[in-house]
Amino acid sequence: MKVEEVVEEALKLVLPEEGEIRMGKEAEEELRRRLDSLEVEYVFVGSYARNTWLKGSLEIDVFLLFPEDMPKEELREKGLEIGKAVLDSYEIRYAEHPYVHGVVKGVEVDVVPCYKLKDPRNIKSAVDRTPFHHKWLENRIKGKENEVRLLKGFLKANGIYGAEYKVRGFSGYLCELLIVFYGSFLETVKNARKWTRRTVIDVAKGEVRKGEEFFVVDPVDEKRNVAANLSIDNLARFVHLSRAFLENPSLGFFKPKPKKGVEPERLRKIIEERGTAVFAVKFRRPDIVEDNLYPQLERASRKIFEFLERENFMPIRYTFKAAEKFCYLLFECQVKEISRVFRRMGPQFEDEKNVKKFLSKRREFAPFIEGGRWWAFEMRKFTTPEEGVKFYVSGHWHTLGKNVGESIKEYFEVVSGEDLLKEPVIAEICEMMGVKG
Amino acid sequence: MKVEEVVEEALKLVLPEEGEIRMGKEAEEELRRRLDSLEVEYVFVGSYARNTWLKGSLEIDVFLLFPEDMPKEELREKGLEIGKAVLDSYEIRYAEHPYVHGVVKGVEVDVVPCYKLKDPRNIKSAVDRTPFHHKWLENRIKGKENEVRLLKGFLKANGIYGAEYKVRGFSGYLCELLIVFYGSFLETVKNARKWTRRTVIDVAKGEVRKGEEFFVVDPVDEKRNVAANLSIDNLARFVHLSRAFLENPSLGFFKPKPKKGVEPERLRKIIEERGTAVFAVKFRRPDIVEDNLYPQLERASRKIFEFLERENFMPIRYTFKAAEKFCYLLFECQVKEISRVFRRMGPQFEDEKNVKKFLSKRREFAPFIEGGRWWAFEMRKFTTPEEGVKFYVSGHWHTLGKNVGESIKEYFEVVSGEDLLKEPVIAEICEMMGVKG
Repeated sequence: MKVEEVVEEALKLVLPEEGEIRMGKEAEEELRRRLDSLEVEYVFVGSYARNTWLKGSLEIDVFLLFPEDMPKEELREKGLEIGKAVLDSYEIRYAEHPYVHGVVKGVEVDVVPCYKLKDPRNIKSAVDRTPFHHKWLENRIKGKENEVRLLKGFLKANGIYGAEYKVRGFSGYLCELLIVFYGSFLETVKNARKWTRRTVIDVAKGEVRKGEEFFVVDPVDEKRNVAANLSIDNLARFVHLSRAFLENPSLGFFKPKPKKGVEPERLRKIIEERGTAVFAVKFRRPDIVEDNLYPQLERASRKIFEFLERENFMPIRYTFKAAEKFCYLLFECQVKEISRVFRRMGPQFEDEKNVKKFLSKRREFAPFIEGGRWWAFEMRKFTTPEEGVKFYVSGHWHTLGKNVGESIKEYFEVVSGEDLLKEPVIAEICEMMGVKG
Repeated sequence: MKVEEVVEEALKLVLPEEGEIRMGKEAEEELRRRLDSLEVEYVFVGSYARNTWLKGSLEIDVFLLFPEDMPKEELREKGLEIGKAVLDSYEIRYAEHPYVHGVVKGVEVDVVPCYKLKDPRNIKSAVDRTPFHHKWLENRIKGKENEVRLLKGFLKANGIYGAEYKVRGFSGYLCELLIVFYGSFLETVKNARKWTRRTVIDVAKGEVRKGEEFFVVDPVDEKRNVAANLSIDNLARFVHLSRAFLENPSLGFFKPKPKKGVEPERLRKIIEERGTAVFAVKFRRPDIVEDNLYPQLERASRKIFEFLERENFMPIRYTFKAAEKFCYLLFECQVKEISRVFRRMGPQFEDEKNVKKFLSKRREFAPFIEGGRWWAFEMRKFTTPEEGVKFYVSGHWHTLGKNVGESIKEYFEVVSGEDLLKEPVIAEICEMMGVKG
């Protein structure tokens, strides 16, 4: 199929249907009525306001604009008060500051208080920047709304849409800037094939240059990298997907692939074939938001991975899973068992004082000289990666992230073998090991 | 016991007895008669000539002095002819040049042809230097002969006497220079406690300084390091022995410790406890002199050790044994088994051409992106160190030393487990593992 035809077809997957659009319209009108009855300045921003939301992701963002000299505390209170007043149902959510999330006529709505500023350089918090983003994009994106949707759909189907920590992908704002810059979805992916980890896209200046990192300059604040939360690996995935799509265009690139694993018994056999140690650190899921939880899971996994490297269990990869009640840090190691004995480095032979100290320790086997220094045989405290991780995690829970550490301090288990295959981690293990569907 | 008393006692272990001295004397007189009857200039050199030979190590060295302008070929022929003529029985031996080794009245004798030179800077081969060494030492060592014997006895009992490759220890000439320099055995060991790998002992200038390596300047040729063949580890052992001896003087330092192992069944249990892989590469002993064989065994062992490191079997130590019919290269590894799967590094994501090539290979598991580059799961050809070594040695025999390589090409086996304990390598394994007697 020709790429233009694929893109044409893909539109059906990303454009909201009649009903969804009408629902948005009705909710918007109702919301405006309610807001107008209160004495408050507001602005509709985000993908709803610019008609760039992805099919099935309708959400209305309303920003309340308060005068610059209002104290933070008052802004917060008034914001929450108005939010509660205009929503059918609501809850308080927390980003940098609290805001109100709720529903109007069946449509999800965020009501966010911010300052009304003249100059984006005076912003006090990230939300103050949003009205400027909207202002900058509003007219520039006109006529290209569906190109934004194509890009979002392409990214989402491949798991790299969203700047939140769980994803570390492309934000909606970043998608719109790319469409403004390149003009269309197709031009974006065509150009992305040549992006590098040093590409700088300066949207305001209309130029691409080389820099220190992948950097999309915010037209509203040239110091800010709109792609700051995009991981290098997700950048790499997008570049690769762009090449693959253009070489072999197909609608599949716009369809999410359900992350399904294999049968437990099949996975057991695969692990046996690979000859590795596969196991999980299991603990109770801390009751915190995902943007707080995921960095901690990442950190904890990395710390344990580094421990496994130091202890020569030769870990291959790690991953993690936050299930409903438990979290799992997952590892695969190339060494299932290491010897009890190892060699400990001692001082150079000239260093009489330290040689004496080194040799004074009682040992089962005689120390020896090699390469001009002393060495001794000593015994490991653990000989399997599972034992090692138990040992490490017990003594180092405090370094595994605040809430994750505290949860692990209360309770953890190292799960492997048949037991591991009973936990809801099969899909994650399959992905970690590159098991083909 | 006080150190002086120990040294006094030790004399009995190192001084030749009446009978040995008489035997030497009688052989010397007979030899001189025979030499005098031929028209040849000669000189008695070495430990017999200087009365510094170690008890039980009587051997007479006679150097035949030929004019500087005699062609090498003629010198060689005349040397062999005379050697044969003056010895009761003989064999031709090969160092840098051939010489005659034999027996006179039951005493071992070397007859070595060399050039008679005015200046040691004109020497054509190492043997030409020996008469100069003798001339330099002759009078300087007078009265200190037994100090030399004490030092030699101390070194020999601890396995570091002799400059030959099998030992890489202290030559007899080096021992005599040290005694000339420090005055006595006791002063030598007292000073040796502070030697470093950068100590330079300039015997002719009577000074110690710091240099690039342990260097004992030959008084006969200041460019030459008399300790060139002393390994850093044997230097370290001597320094350590000197400290230990002076701290706790005992006659034991002068008594060789028989290198005995333990019972095979005990060794089997020790290896099991240590949890390591212990195995040998066994092959037919090449029919070459030790000074040629040992460097090759060393090289072959090192090459295989480096292979085991590269392949992550985490070798601890190696050793080797040249038995009568077979040679053994011995290894102990911390990893008995490694996984079948490993991760192979691929190109950075930007490098489109190589990414394509990397991904075009058929693989059981899906490649992945990490840290901005591609990686793939691949399968190892071997998962145990024994299998690995078989694989390596089969393909790389040519890099394992000329004669050792050729022998391995003809036949080798990797021996481990119960089979290994039937081979004559128990003592070597015990020493490698620091098994205490």
